[in-house]
Amino acid sequence: MKASSGDALAHLVEALRRLPGVGVKSAQRMAYHLLQHDQPAASQLARALDAAVQKVQHCERCHTFTEQPVCATCLDPQRDPHQLCVVETPADQAAVERTGSYRGLYFVLMGKLSPLDGVGAHDIGLPALIERAFDEVVQEVIVATNFTAEGEVTAHVIAEALKSRGLRVTRLARGVPIGSELEYVDLGTIAHAFSERR
Amino acid sequence: MKASSGDALAHLVEALRRLPGVGVKSAQRMAYHLLQHDQPAASQLARALDAAVQKVQHCERCHTFTEQPVCATCLDPQRDPHQLCVVETPADQAAVERTGSYRGLYFVLMGKLSPLDGVGAHDIGLPALIERAFDEVVQEVIVATNFTAEGEVTAHVIAEALKSRGLRVTRLARGVPIGSELEYVDLGTIAHAFSERR
Repeated sequence: MKASSGDALAHLVEALRRLPGVGVKSAQRMAYHLLQHDQPAASQLARALDAAVQKVQHCERCHTFTEQPVCATCLDPQRDPHQLCVVETPADQAAVERTGSYRGLYFVLMGKLSPLDGVGAHDIGLPALIERAFDEVVQEVIVATNFTAEGEVTAHVIAEALKSRGLRVTRLARGVPIGSELEYVDLGTIAHAFSERR
Repeated sequence: MKASSGDALAHLVEALRRLPGVGVKSAQRMAYHLLQHDQPAASQLARALDAAVQKVQHCERCHTFTEQPVCATCLDPQRDPHQLCVVETPADQAAVERTGSYRGLYFVLMGKLSPLDGVGAHDIGLPALIERAFDEVVQEVIVATNFTAEGEVTAHVIAEALKSRGLRVTRLARGVPIGSELEYVDLGTIAHAFSERR
């Protein structure tokens, strides 16, 4: 920022840059847009940020974001308490919910194992998951972490920890995505789909 | 957003979506990131937004963002008041400044003509530019709007308005960018570079 633009604008650009995926150019574009064309949006965002920081906490049972001590999903008597689906983020949970094919409960890790970034088992709440999974009601833990390198490692560590304590642990099926053409599917996926054919 | 996530989180995602270039997925990712990993950044952004909305205004002379009635550039006695460079945005002004090759003053349109979006000559401050340009001191107006369709139309309209009143109006040179290979330069640029060879 030019010095003549003053501190307030420079500070705004700096603050916007801390959003994930936002670089200097995007932050400048956002700041200019808000100040020139949409000041109400700027004020609305400021209010929403404050409210969210103040009100949003983690569900005591599943760790997802909620404004209550326990989230609505965990409190829903219609959900099957015998199944516990482990996902990395609330966004993943929302994706599973959208399928409409799962009626059990969730545990949201709020992250994934990433030793290189210093994110260990404690940071993603593995002890809390173990405590949650052994509530004497859960019969199956479905591990639905992402199918990335880090997600797979996370799934492996969770599965080992729970299986060694005698719980049934399953993993979402790997295979060829619906609607895709084999020609364009990566080889690892096809190999998996072969070995897990049924 | 799931209903169980509560209103504060949903409102935050909604507010983030109003930033330019941010869709639902990005907004969710930003909201989760801020709440999970960087709450200080959320509060900092809220403060910065409020401060910017409150303090940042337009320079009375050049229309760029500033916290004073007249910006530092317009007040700088070292700048050559005989030249006035017209740019679309403060970002464009900053780009020109970084070249270090221009020592005159600026007029920032804070937009461009875009009849399809209902942005006319009045919205980009053409009357104010005309008033500014005819201060009896400015001798040359250098039109540095972008070399896009809308920027060219804007440049044309500005040039017509000022020339018809007897002012010298120039436009940044079009040509082959430094460091580029002709093979990869678009044909319109090469054609322009030919017709404007020197």
